[in-house]
Amino acid sequence: MKHLVLLASSLGLFAHTSYAQTGPIRQYRQQHEHQLLTTYLAFTSIPNVVTDSANIRRNADYILTLMQQMGVRGQLLEGKVPSTAPAVFGEVNTPGATRTIVFYAHYDGQPVNPANWAEGTSPFRPTFFDKAIPQGGKPVPTPKPGEKIDPNWRLYGRSTSDDKAGVFAILTAYDAIRQSKLTPGVNIKFFFEGEEEAGSVHLADILEKHRSKLAADTWIIGDGPVHPSGRKQVVFGCRGDVNLNLTVYGPKRPLHSGHYGNYIPNPAMKLVQLLASMKDTDGRILVKGFNDDVIPLTAAEKKAFADMPTVEPGLSQELGIAKPDGAGASLMEQISLPSLNINGLQSANVGAMSANVIPTVANAVLDLRLVPGNDVGRQIQKVKDHAKAQGFVVIDHEPTDAERLASPSLVRIVARGGGYNAQRTSMDAPLSQAVIRAVQGTTEQPVVVVPMTGGSLPLFIFEQTLGAKPITLGIPNADNNQHAENENLRLQTLWDGIETFASVMLMR
Amino acid sequence: MKHLVLLASSLGLFAHTSYAQTGPIRQYRQQHEHQLLTTYLAFTSIPNVVTDSANIRRNADYILTLMQQMGVRGQLLEGKVPSTAPAVFGEVNTPGATRTIVFYAHYDGQPVNPANWAEGTSPFRPTFFDKAIPQGGKPVPTPKPGEKIDPNWRLYGRSTSDDKAGVFAILTAYDAIRQSKLTPGVNIKFFFEGEEEAGSVHLADILEKHRSKLAADTWIIGDGPVHPSGRKQVVFGCRGDVNLNLTVYGPKRPLHSGHYGNYIPNPAMKLVQLLASMKDTDGRILVKGFNDDVIPLTAAEKKAFADMPTVEPGLSQELGIAKPDGAGASLMEQISLPSLNINGLQSANVGAMSANVIPTVANAVLDLRLVPGNDVGRQIQKVKDHAKAQGFVVIDHEPTDAERLASPSLVRIVARGGGYNAQRTSMDAPLSQAVIRAVQGTTEQPVVVVPMTGGSLPLFIFEQTLGAKPITLGIPNADNNQHAENENLRLQTLWDGIETFASVMLMR
Repeated sequence: MKHLVLLASSLGLFAHTSYAQTGPIRQYRQQHEHQLLTTYLAFTSIPNVVTDSANIRRNADYILTLMQQMGVRGQLLEGKVPSTAPAVFGEVNTPGATRTIVFYAHYDGQPVNPANWAEGTSPFRPTFFDKAIPQGGKPVPTPKPGEKIDPNWRLYGRSTSDDKAGVFAILTAYDAIRQSKLTPGVNIKFFFEGEEEAGSVHLADILEKHRSKLAADTWIIGDGPVHPSGRKQVVFGCRGDVNLNLTVYGPKRPLHSGHYGNYIPNPAMKLVQLLASMKDTDGRILVKGFNDDVIPLTAAEKKAFADMPTVEPGLSQELGIAKPDGAGASLMEQISLPSLNINGLQSANVGAMSANVIPTVANAVLDLRLVPGNDVGRQIQKVKDHAKAQGFVVIDHEPTDAERLASPSLVRIVARGGGYNAQRTSMDAPLSQAVIRAVQGTTEQPVVVVPMTGGSLPLFIFEQTLGAKPITLGIPNADNNQHAENENLRLQTLWDGIETFASVMLMR
Repeated sequence: MKHLVLLASSLGLFAHTSYAQTGPIRQYRQQHEHQLLTTYLAFTSIPNVVTDSANIRRNADYILTLMQQMGVRGQLLEGKVPSTAPAVFGEVNTPGATRTIVFYAHYDGQPVNPANWAEGTSPFRPTFFDKAIPQGGKPVPTPKPGEKIDPNWRLYGRSTSDDKAGVFAILTAYDAIRQSKLTPGVNIKFFFEGEEEAGSVHLADILEKHRSKLAADTWIIGDGPVHPSGRKQVVFGCRGDVNLNLTVYGPKRPLHSGHYGNYIPNPAMKLVQLLASMKDTDGRILVKGFNDDVIPLTAAEKKAFADMPTVEPGLSQELGIAKPDGAGASLMEQISLPSLNINGLQSANVGAMSANVIPTVANAVLDLRLVPGNDVGRQIQKVKDHAKAQGFVVIDHEPTDAERLASPSLVRIVARGGGYNAQRTSMDAPLSQAVIRAVQGTTEQPVVVVPMTGGSLPLFIFEQTLGAKPITLGIPNADNNQHAENENLRLQTLWDGIETFASVMLMR
């Protein structure tokens, strides 16, 4: 408890949600684990890539059914511009409550490439393993009623962690309160988005259209992992994000690399030259002015970062990394800065499909993360200006023949889905402090207070549209492989997440 | 005829194969076009990627059947080490002939990615188009007997040009001689390889094992295109070739680019930095000593290159290239030098499949072309040394955990299939001159004499193993997309190729 006392003292007055309240939540969960997992397997079996609109709608309908079973009449929310992925909304009024909190999670998931998933896993056939696969985990049959459920098991499948765990933990928290005959301390609203992984393109529209329905004191965002140390965390902001598609053009038809190699320029070589110019070998970004508009961290934020548990040595060991980028800076220092990451590269083929050709195009996807002070439009422009400074003509369309013949180096740079800015909520606000206390009340380990995460949520949209100052509570294990193959959830983190959200709902 | 006279005078004494000989060949073809195309469609419908051993064998069997129909008893040749892709051999003795010539082509093709092929085409469902697709070509139904066959039609399909056109033109040339009651001027041997596109890994073994059976005055290689000007060409050498697989390693599991971006190094960034360091923006190779061991061209070879038709301006226009690599050097000058080409790049995904991740690996395939003086082993070592000079540790296996933790930059560099050196045959030898004359006898356009092509064939293996000095005769149109999607053959080039080979077979 030493850490807890230190943390508590550093945050001022401190009062736990009493175990008298979270105890019944845990008891309810322990008594219903099989039933909860049956529901969760059904939920995570529904494919949820946003381009698969039929299945996306099945997810929304499934959430509506869950709400109905809890006595909550849910509804689908769309903006003025219809989307195939509506938000799912529900509401529970608590007589006498003075605060209203919207609980947010998203039910869509990142695209999947089943070929990359480990043997025994399948993105939409969620499967239990006795431990994480890199630690030698083996498949475990789905437990029958009465059989023991090990909380260290992993459930492998797309969105088992990101972010159906959020949707499910929030709804189950409310149901556990209800079934335990407890009374929430706040008015509860549920808002489950359906296109977060696609850049939340309709979110602002939906928030604006349903502004009065969504009025609240704050938004609690159920997304992202717990701290890599395993401790629960309360997060007060996140980086912004935008993806850029880059395409460099070569000959209009693929050419034999022998008959034309050395003479006809290769677009893959031009692309790698452009990308390589964006960072030095220590990972420092060389794009001019990339960090110029960054608002520095406050002293309190710097202290909170410094107080966070150190994960770096174990992380490098686990990941097989000899030397991190950043020339000695810490992970938290590095993710407090804007980033530039190559998400993917492709030109022609590698491996068994590769052939001796000069490819016609070379593609890359960049991920730009933004921090407070950065602006999506400006950040994109910096990358475009960098390409120009490298001798490229930057276009936003397939080149015409005239454009090809006019410019030796053409790059098409197009933002995907517009992107959004970073967001940061003050840690010192009374509601911020109350949420920290509520989460701390569910765990003996000191809660980690995080001024801002490296990952992104469209939190800026809540602030910009509704003036809301959201707070984020993570759920899954940090090694959950979210966004990639072999996404997984350690069961204990789901059980813990239910208590986390219940405690906030019980907060008075 | 001006060019012809100039060319003839520059090459010394000159005597055409008379049209009295090639005339009957053309007549035979004109009378049998439907039958020939029916056979060729059946042949090119058999998938021929070397990894597909069942179908590769079907190709070999089909060739045996064709030989049998021509009264030639064929047989399959393997080396000491069995291969799933045997060579197909056949022999025709000509009483009184003083020369023996082996006619070579290969029946395997480059790997295919059907998804990349144009609408209406399919790699192994060969389809006629009224002209090339980039020129607006539309599909044409397979002509019925009696229907007109336009020699400008294109046949789209894998290996329609590279190199089943070689196999088919050679066999048809012999059959046309036979059916026209003419007598060959030389002893003919047929040798059709089945794994040329896979690096001819068993070829030396097969040649050594069957050395006496394959004894000959020269090898005529039926592969590669005619000159881009449309003129026939006689080729006296080719570059060597080796492919390298490069893999750069990142974190052992894929990471969320937000939570770890800027801190955990990205293997795609390291790969692009390594590749970018290999060339300057004019395409000049920066790998140390890359050209040091090149044997310069002789004066005669330089002159032959200078005499070749100029294709550069039209080529750049057609391909949409504003500025070729090589700082002003000609195409032929550039392909007389060793090359380094990026055949393919991949890391994680681009497009709809892309996700916000730090990938675990980044892959590239390099194509190195070699010229006389270069040695495969030395050329590979230069690339490895370059990577070392860029701070990489070069390995030849998946890294161990200890290796990952010891080196910030690890690259695995592995040669695919060993590769082979360049080969050049003297243009001045009497047999070389005789072949030039034979080919010139089939066309009113001056034949293009090429000291060496940019493309590669395993000709070095013939020289090294048998002491043979091969000569190459191209067949398809230069814009045949060989090695890539939408490979195609202009029919007239197949008709012309039959006459080319027949003329050499009739040479006395």
